[in-house]
Amino acid sequence: MNKNTKTSSAVIKRLPRYRRYLRDLQRKGVDKISSSEFSALIGYTASQIRQDLNNFGGFGQQGYGYNVNGLFNEISSILGLDRDYKMVIVGAGNLGQAIANYTYYYKAGFVVRGIFEVNPRLIGLKINDIEVMDYEGLDAYVKENKIDIGIICTTKDSAQDVADTLTAAGVKGIWNFAPVDLNLPPCVAIENVHLSDSLHSLAYHINHRDEVCEEFEDEGEAKQE
Amino acid sequence: MNKNTKTSSAVIKRLPRYRRYLRDLQRKGVDKISSSEFSALIGYTASQIRQDLNNFGGFGQQGYGYNVNGLFNEISSILGLDRDYKMVIVGAGNLGQAIANYTYYYKAGFVVRGIFEVNPRLIGLKINDIEVMDYEGLDAYVKENKIDIGIICTTKDSAQDVADTLTAAGVKGIWNFAPVDLNLPPCVAIENVHLSDSLHSLAYHINHRDEVCEEFEDEGEAKQE
Repeated sequence: MNKNTKTSSAVIKRLPRYRRYLRDLQRKGVDKISSSEFSALIGYTASQIRQDLNNFGGFGQQGYGYNVNGLFNEISSILGLDRDYKMVIVGAGNLGQAIANYTYYYKAGFVVRGIFEVNPRLIGLKINDIEVMDYEGLDAYVKENKIDIGIICTTKDSAQDVADTLTAAGVKGIWNFAPVDLNLPPCVAIENVHLSDSLHSLAYHINHRDEVCEEFEDEGEAKQE
Repeated sequence: MNKNTKTSSAVIKRLPRYRRYLRDLQRKGVDKISSSEFSALIGYTASQIRQDLNNFGGFGQQGYGYNVNGLFNEISSILGLDRDYKMVIVGAGNLGQAIANYTYYYKAGFVVRGIFEVNPRLIGLKINDIEVMDYEGLDAYVKENKIDIGIICTTKDSAQDVADTLTAAGVKGIWNFAPVDLNLPPCVAIENVHLSDSLHSLAYHINHRDEVCEEFEDEGEAKQE
């Protein structure tokens, strides 16, 4: 695996999906899978899969297909899932609490170490044994505990300030749930989960569904004739 | 606006973002914005913006730029945000409760009418006055109340069954938070929020950050020399 290869972000977005399907295969006790079966399962063409995996050296064997465990482990390692990440959540409202619970039950190397909040009514609460602390202490806590990831669950108006504090304190990545695009130094990785954007895209597709449905229904009628 | 134009899903993914920036401009009292200012703000090239908006008839005026209110309203209408959507949530665990709270405070035409759950300990609970009901009643409720959107906050193992029940009962779209890809009839719109995929992409970027940072630090040093 060549760590210096520039891999397109579209490929990187597909890797977690490959891993998800491989984990399902593992759980079903499948040891190997042909490239055409894998293609049918995941919904990408066999050539797309080959191309994607060639970015990392390729893992298929002609006439054999893919070794499920081997490929799962390789992709996990490419993604960096063979190590642990220390995280803090900023914002202990509904979303922050849900993310704290989510990662707690997820148990996969992503460990929330602290939750920070400005609202005094929430400070001192415990969410799955993780204490909600005063936002004032965020900078010192991140530095002392060498936190890797900051999770932003604040309002959009606070999000940039929080991001600035987190990056100045040395986090390597930010998982942003606030509905705003953050300005970050290039050395800080960012992933956004924009819930309202996703809901608005869904609304678009619902309202432009008719075209698809009419075509679908036309096809159905044509076949019946 | 031509409803039958086939618009690429990349453009549709960008529309909510345009709308978000336009709303910020509205709040700041900005009436019009030149295409170059809008480009600098949103981070797409002026030509990209023009191309995107031309899919819907184009809204800019040569030498004037964009009318903020006009463009905001048009995009809202293209997305279908000028009407209300009735929603149900399936799964009243942490994530389901967080989404119920999120949409409650969001107040923007997306109204959760009911929450459904199999766990008897959660049935009967109220989350912001919305009752958690027995999953057995989902089909009848969706039909009776003409629910538009089903939100799936269950485990991955239950998600496909829930999706089948929702689509058979007539929902027009599904907002899926379960970490699984659903098989749906073409007439049902789908938006996935795959939190674990997003976290795994973040891990990848953190682990491949070094390249970016080395380049960045090299540039910095070069400048200092």
